[in-house]
Amino acid sequence: MMSFATLLAQDLAATPDLALEISQNLLTTNNVWMMLSTALVFIMHLGFAGVETGFGQAKNTVNIMFKNTITPIIGIVSYALVGFYLMYPGFEVPGWFSFDSAGWNMFWFSPIDADVTSGYADGGYTYWTDFLFQAMFAATAATIVSGAIAERVKISAYLIFTLLFVGLVYPLIGSWKWGGGVLDDMGFYDFAGSTLVHSVGGWGALAGVILVGPRIGKYVNGKTVEKPGASVPLAVIGVFLLWLGWFGFNGGSVLSANPALVSSVLVITSLGACAGGLGGFFTAYFTFKRLDLGMLLNGILAGLVGITAGADVFTPAAALLIGFVAGILVVLSAVFLDKLRLDDVVGAVSVHLTCGVWGTIAVGIFSSNPDHSFLAQLIGVAVCGAMAFGSAFLIFYILKVTIGIRVSEEHEKSGLDSHEHGIRGYTIVYDE
Amino acid sequence: MMSFATLLAQDLAATPDLALEISQNLLTTNNVWMMLSTALVFIMHLGFAGVETGFGQAKNTVNIMFKNTITPIIGIVSYALVGFYLMYPGFEVPGWFSFDSAGWNMFWFSPIDADVTSGYADGGYTYWTDFLFQAMFAATAATIVSGAIAERVKISAYLIFTLLFVGLVYPLIGSWKWGGGVLDDMGFYDFAGSTLVHSVGGWGALAGVILVGPRIGKYVNGKTVEKPGASVPLAVIGVFLLWLGWFGFNGGSVLSANPALVSSVLVITSLGACAGGLGGFFTAYFTFKRLDLGMLLNGILAGLVGITAGADVFTPAAALLIGFVAGILVVLSAVFLDKLRLDDVVGAVSVHLTCGVWGTIAVGIFSSNPDHSFLAQLIGVAVCGAMAFGSAFLIFYILKVTIGIRVSEEHEKSGLDSHEHGIRGYTIVYDE
Amino acid sequence: MMSFATLLAQDLAATPDLALEISQNLLTTNNVWMMLSTALVFIMHLGFAGVETGFGQAKNTVNIMFKNTITPIIGIVSYALVGFYLMYPGFEVPGWFSFDSAGWNMFWFSPIDADVTSGYADGGYTYWTDFLFQAMFAATAATIVSGAIAERVKISAYLIFTLLFVGLVYPLIGSWKWGGGVLDDMGFYDFAGSTLVHSVGGWGALAGVILVGPRIGKYVNGKTVEKPGASVPLAVIGVFLLWLGWFGFNGGSVLSANPALVSSVLVITSLGACAGGLGGFFTAYFTFKRLDLGMLLNGILAGLVGITAGADVFTPAAALLIGFVAGILVVLSAVFLDKLRLDDVVGAVSVHLTCGVWGTIAVGIFSSNPDHSFLAQLIGVAVCGAMAFGSAFLIFYILKVTIGIRVSEEHEKSGLDSHEHGIRGYTIVYDE
Repeated sequence: MMSFATLLAQDLAATPDLALEISQNLLTTNNVWMMLSTALVFIMHLGFAGVETGFGQAKNTVNIMFKNTITPIIGIVSYALVGFYLMYPGFEVPGWFSFDSAGWNMFWFSPIDADVTSGYADGGYTYWTDFLFQAMFAATAATIVSGAIAERVKISAYLIFTLLFVGLVYPLIGSWKWGGGVLDDMGFYDFAGSTLVHSVGGWGALAGVILVGPRIGKYVNGKTVEKPGASVPLAVIGVFLLWLGWFGFNGGSVLSANPALVSSVLVITSLGACAGGLGGFFTAYFTFKRLDLGMLLNGILAGLVGITAGADVFTPAAALLIGFVAGILVVLSAVFLDKLRLDDVVGAVSVHLTCGVWGTIAVGIFSSNPDHSFLAQLIGVAVCGAMAFGSAFLIFYILKVTIGIRVSEEHEKSGLDSHEHGIRGYTIVYDE
Repeated sequence: MMSFATLLAQDLAATPDLALEISQNLLTTNNVWMMLSTALVFIMHLGFAGVETGFGQAKNTVNIMFKNTITPIIGIVSYALVGFYLMYPGFEVPGWFSFDSAGWNMFWFSPIDADVTSGYADGGYTYWTDFLFQAMFAATAATIVSGAIAERVKISAYLIFTLLFVGLVYPLIGSWKWGGGVLDDMGFYDFAGSTLVHSVGGWGALAGVILVGPRIGKYVNGKTVEKPGASVPLAVIGVFLLWLGWFGFNGGSVLSANPALVSSVLVITSLGACAGGLGGFFTAYFTFKRLDLGMLLNGILAGLVGITAGADVFTPAAALLIGFVAGILVVLSAVFLDKLRLDDVVGAVSVHLTCGVWGTIAVGIFSSNPDHSFLAQLIGVAVCGAMAFGSAFLIFYILKVTIGIRVSEEHEKSGLDSHEHGIRGYTIVYDE
Repeated sequence: MMSFATLLAQDLAATPDLALEISQNLLTTNNVWMMLSTALVFIMHLGFAGVETGFGQAKNTVNIMFKNTITPIIGIVSYALVGFYLMYPGFEVPGWFSFDSAGWNMFWFSPIDADVTSGYADGGYTYWTDFLFQAMFAATAATIVSGAIAERVKISAYLIFTLLFVGLVYPLIGSWKWGGGVLDDMGFYDFAGSTLVHSVGGWGALAGVILVGPRIGKYVNGKTVEKPGASVPLAVIGVFLLWLGWFGFNGGSVLSANPALVSSVLVITSLGACAGGLGGFFTAYFTFKRLDLGMLLNGILAGLVGITAGADVFTPAAALLIGFVAGILVVLSAVFLDKLRLDDVVGAVSVHLTCGVWGTIAVGIFSSNPDHSFLAQLIGVAVCGAMAFGSAFLIFYILKVTIGIRVSEEHEKSGLDSHEHGIRGYTIVYDE
């Protein structure tokens, strides 16, 4: 048996190591949650693809799928090349505009080793997880625009827009809050991006819808003509995948696996989704006198967008109310936009802009954190809105007067698939 | 360098903190697994939606999707309002009926902080994770009913039934075992719900099928007429998502991330699914002389339902046998139900009731735990069955004689979509 | 208050326990990640099903779905019965061929307890997780073959091939590297299976395509006739699910949740996928003058396959290059195969064989590990290729001269669904 002194010495030597091991284990656990959240946000891109091809017409299915497949690719690559260092200017002085050139060098040229990650982000995740999680977020802003202007936008214009919007506009606005910039200093709060992600995308969608104009035959003699979507099941698959993805979108925005915090965020998020669905359903029932599946689905998305700004500071009761109001708003907003002859194929402006603004302002009303103020939320909404709408309008306008942003009338009528892609979305023929 | 005494004092002070940190880290890890399981059970609702719209006729696609989308919403909200406190009457004395009013107050009115979760559930997960995991389970019981009575049930009747069945019947039965009630005291065992979830849903489906009657044209001159499903790929997507979701359904029912236990449960679950698929495939092959994809798929689900009652107490060899028998039973059960002119659109009664009962009884035969007895399993099956079937029959009967539970003949023939929802499930038209 | 001596004694006693708890917690976290990875690899089977039914013709949808549903079942069961102990001959002396009979007994007959898993695999995961993760991998090799020879292969022949290929050929080749056999001794490197999984499947697909011959009407008067796929959305769903699954396929191949390593692997994997998509898109654009969604999708898969051999030893810059080249290669390879009149329905040979070989060789060029050599990679590719192609050719050849491997001309023309399965893939009819 070892002497008491030997045991004591071993013990003394072991304790600091144990403490280090414990903190490394916590990093490992946190990082697993964040990688899972990253995967969940990734699959939201399939969710968007489902919603847009489900609600879009069959003749444009390939075109929509093409856009929705290449959007996350452009998003991830442009975020790796520019956006990440613009949004999180770690080593520079943040404010309105900075670029983390040291980070850029590290990303592209450092060997992959533990030194890059130890002590990073308070042990919540590694540098690489940080990049990938944020890159998955970035591409969603462009995808939102895609759905609104589908079925008539020229694909070359859309791709250039996406590159600029995801590579520059989105990360710049994001840096003002999440990068520790001016809006953060001012007390503006946006937990997971009702404003920074959803309304930014929604403003871009609004600019696009205005400049590209409505689809041929959408508004005839003052009446709105329904254009039946190709596949209701695809739209439903899309909405369920988006709800699933929101577990990572909001749950990952805790930036660690903190059990109480993450799990309460998931409860609040789900209650928001449920209440939004009910709000959309009831509003559509009393407005259109039918069991409107489209508004049930958009209501769920509306509730999710609305709850996102404060999913960590709302109570369950507030979550029900905020989600339900979002569900009402999404129906009213869609009706209002049609009155203005603003043709949004999937209701992206109503879901992401209207309810993104509502959710951000709701933080100023319902937050359990006394530091949050109604005024700061209003200013944040206005500043981000001005920048997002202004930039998107400018980009689309320049594209419109140069390469054009709309396909020919002939192509639009016969569908984009056969002209630009050479195949059809569905070929269900049984006779040889 | 510090003196020996200083080091010693630091060390003594650090050890209790280290022990606390270690147990908190374990909670964090456990909770990550439980949140992942929650997400996986959530996506089972999309799985059910796929199976039901895939096997259902195209003219009722929107109707089925509407029901399957709103069912988890009703499930989560009613579970938050009533079910959770009825099923887990923590602070009250459980038995046949209790309600945790203290928990209700805590859920809706307490601030979200660590106090609610510390020491909860032996460090397996937080209070919020507990609620959401169980809420996702609750809604599945109603979804099972939905599939059986699709294509002719009146949606208002279905929604009222769902509210009562998920809000009251399911949690009450659940409390008898999982809430520490009378069946638990008696030694009844049901690991993840072959009886408490699946057969409860299956009994509800049987009551519905009896009272709502077969679809027009299903049984003609003593023969069963096949009604071709709209989309085989949707049904396959559904079954794969259900299998995936079962990783969380059974894996999460360990109620922690215990490595040996959870991973062996996943192996047993997958072997059950595989054997069920093979059992269904071979039985259908020898019965119908064709490679029956429907029975391969239902066999997989049958194996999963059958293995669920004892996924933690079966050996791999027993799992193969139990799953294979479940696969045989699901085919025989479907044939038998058709003989009785009980029209179950997706085979829900055969999958969830027949195989749920089989799996629960199999625990009495194959369990590696000597405390489990055949008799206790039989009693549990009978008690839960009587309550579930009785309640469901009563609810449907009252609805039948009041608001009615079946759509008009005209609506059924032309499809529910155009009448109640105003749109069609698929609009694949290429000519303008 | 306790005496100093008592405190000291408690502390001394507690430290070894704390150290054990800490290492057990790390196992728990690692195992959660590995179980998640297992679930992600499982869902790849749905991804393959989507790609194959999406690109295949509607008249063969049920047949393809049948094959893709039963393939993972055969894979998991045969891996449990034979493959696992052949691939990882733990207690035997590995080399060219060994079988872990002790492991076989343990799997089927041991009680499920902690002893089986403690100290297993350096605390990265449990024995059960190991089995299930590897079983999910095994079935992919056969699925790759399925896609190439779809629409004309006789299903009985395919099922026998799958049983032999997954049960014997795949694990035997795998044992040479991952089981510590001869290729491992020689310095060959394949991180997650560009060669051991993808090119093995690709060689099997090539053998099948040669022996089964092209579909009727595919090559007419020296021209290649396009056979339109049934559903572009299904193909897109498939590719997104495969990309998602690759988070587990590559991320899980780290064999622990090591934060820096796993997260950098995910970044490298995603950059490879993005670059592959861009490479496929641009190559197809300049070759076919259209926005080819099929080649964008296959480019993504090509990038993923290419990055897989060295996802832990490539830099982000190298990942972009390797993925982009893979995207170019997949288009050129598909064109080349058509020139040789080798009819591969989904491009499986081009994606998995061509890019699997490319990725494995790329390790010899771009690896950051100086132990990796170009020569060792070449030898590994050649040895595995000879074995995989030779075995697959032999199996298919024996099947061809005995039971036959091709359906009748009549069945092929009218579609396999109605003849072998008795139902159709889609029945979208609205008039009663």
